[in-house]
Amino acid sequence: MSGSLVVVGTGPGKAELMTPATQAAIAKATDLVGYGPYLDRIPAMKAGQCRHASDNRVELDRARHALSLAAAGRDVVVVSGGDPGVFAMAAAVFEAVEVGDPAWRTLDIRVEPGVTAMLAAAAEVGAPLGGDFCAISLSDNLKSWSTIERRLKAAAHGDFVIALYNPASKARPRQLAEAFVLLRSVKDAATPVLFVRAAGTSEAKVVSTTLGMADGSMADMRTLVIIGASTTRQVGRWIYTPRRERGA
Amino acid sequence: MSGSLVVVGTGPGKAELMTPATQAAIAKATDLVGYGPYLDRIPAMKAGQCRHASDNRVELDRARHALSLAAAGRDVVVVSGGDPGVFAMAAAVFEAVEVGDPAWRTLDIRVEPGVTAMLAAAAEVGAPLGGDFCAISLSDNLKSWSTIERRLKAAAHGDFVIALYNPASKARPRQLAEAFVLLRSVKDAATPVLFVRAAGTSEAKVVSTTLGMADGSMADMRTLVIIGASTTRQVGRWIYTPRRERGA
Repeated sequence: MSGSLVVVGTGPGKAELMTPATQAAIAKATDLVGYGPYLDRIPAMKAGQCRHASDNRVELDRARHALSLAAAGRDVVVVSGGDPGVFAMAAAVFEAVEVGDPAWRTLDIRVEPGVTAMLAAAAEVGAPLGGDFCAISLSDNLKSWSTIERRLKAAAHGDFVIALYNPASKARPRQLAEAFVLLRSVKDAATPVLFVRAAGTSEAKVVSTTLGMADGSMADMRTLVIIGASTTRQVGRWIYTPRRERGA
Repeated sequence: MSGSLVVVGTGPGKAELMTPATQAAIAKATDLVGYGPYLDRIPAMKAGQCRHASDNRVELDRARHALSLAAAGRDVVVVSGGDPGVFAMAAAVFEAVEVGDPAWRTLDIRVEPGVTAMLAAAAEVGAPLGGDFCAISLSDNLKSWSTIERRLKAAAHGDFVIALYNPASKARPRQLAEAFVLLRSVKDAATPVLFVRAAGTSEAKVVSTTLGMADGSMADMRTLVIIGASTTRQVGRWIYTPRRERGA
C-alpha cells in the first residue's frame, strides 16, 4: 500500500503553538480528516486538498474513514486538537487498526507530537506542573465513574498535581463537583485550584481559587482544571510547584 | 522595570518541534540564558544577542541571573529543553522570585509551552498515553526516595500509564531497577514497558519489552521510560492505550 496516515495535533488553539513538523505534515496531505472546529484552525494550504469534517462524537468512524483513505493510496492527516496522543485521535486510530482490515497493520502510520492543553494551561498561570503530576479525563463516556474515583484517590494519596481534562459538559454537569468532594476528603482545603479556560488561545481566562472554595460549576468543556500538590503555592501573581519537596 | 523574562522550551530536540511562539520569543530577546546544549539547538538569530550558557546543575543560579538581567531592563529568554513547565526551568524561575528581590515580583514574566519529552516518546511508539497517565521524575536530588516510592505505588494502584523522567544517571544507576521491583509487586509482569531514547530527535531509538523483563540498565539520562496501564497493548508495530476500559 502506498498511502500514509499521520496523526497530528493543532496545539491548544493559537497558530503559533502548532509545531512546524505538524504544519509540514498538513501541507503535504491529500486529505485532512478531523472534527470540524479543529480543521477550521488550519488555513487552506494546497489546491485539491480534501477536507473531511465530522462531528466530535464519532472518533472511531473518523479513524476508520482515514485508514480507508490511506489504504486507497491517499496521504491522509488526521487532525486533533492539542497533542494527538493525549485524550485525542491517536488512540482511536490504533483502536480502529486493531479491529479493522488486517492490511491496515502494514500502513505507514505516524504520530506527530503537539502541545497538549495541560501544558498551555500551566503556562498561563506559572508552573503548577513543576513537580510530579497526573492527567485524568473526567469523562465517563468510555470508562466507569468508579475507575475515575479510584484514580482521583490514588492521585490524591500520591500527592500528585492533578490536571483534569473534560471536567464538565452539558451531559455531565455534576462530576466535577463530585471529584472535588472526593479530593477534599484527602487533600488540604487550602490547596490551589486553577480553572483555565481556552488556554493557549487569545481568549484564555484564569480563575484561581482553593480546593475548599472550588465549585463544579466553574468549568465547562473548554476548561482545564489543575489541582495542586501539597507544595503548590502562589508567588506574586503566579502559581507554581517547587521542584524541591519540603525538607529535602 | 522595563525588562522582561520569557521561559521557553526548545521541545525534545528537532527544530521542527519548537513552536513558532517560542521561536518568536527567542528572536526578540536581547539575552538568552540556559544550559549550553539547549542554547546550541538555537541558530544565531540576531546580532548583539548575548548568550549566557551554564552547567546543568545550577538551575537556581541561572534563574537568578536571568531575573537580574530582566530587572536591569534586558529582554531575557530562559531556554529549557522540552516544555519549560515540566521538570525544567519555569519552576526554578518562580523559586528564585519567591526568595529573591521583592521587585522581581513586578517583572513581566511569561511562560511559553512546548512539546515535553513524554509526548515525543509516546508519538515514537504509537499512543501509549491514550488513557489517564502520570509523569514522575525519578531523580532524588530534590525529593526523597520515599516520596518517589509513594508516588510509584499510588500510580500503580490507580492503574495509570506511568512516564518516568530522569530514570537514570551515572550518579543514580540503581533507582530504575528499584522502581521496577516496586511496580512488579503491584502490576502484571506482561505490562508493556518502553524505553525511548532521544525521542523527537533524528537519533530516536525505541526498545519495547515487558515489566517482567525490564532491566534498570536499559535507560540512561536521555531515555524516557513509559510503563503501560492494564489495558495498554500492542497492535502491529505500535503500542497504545485504548480510550475505552475493558467492559465499559
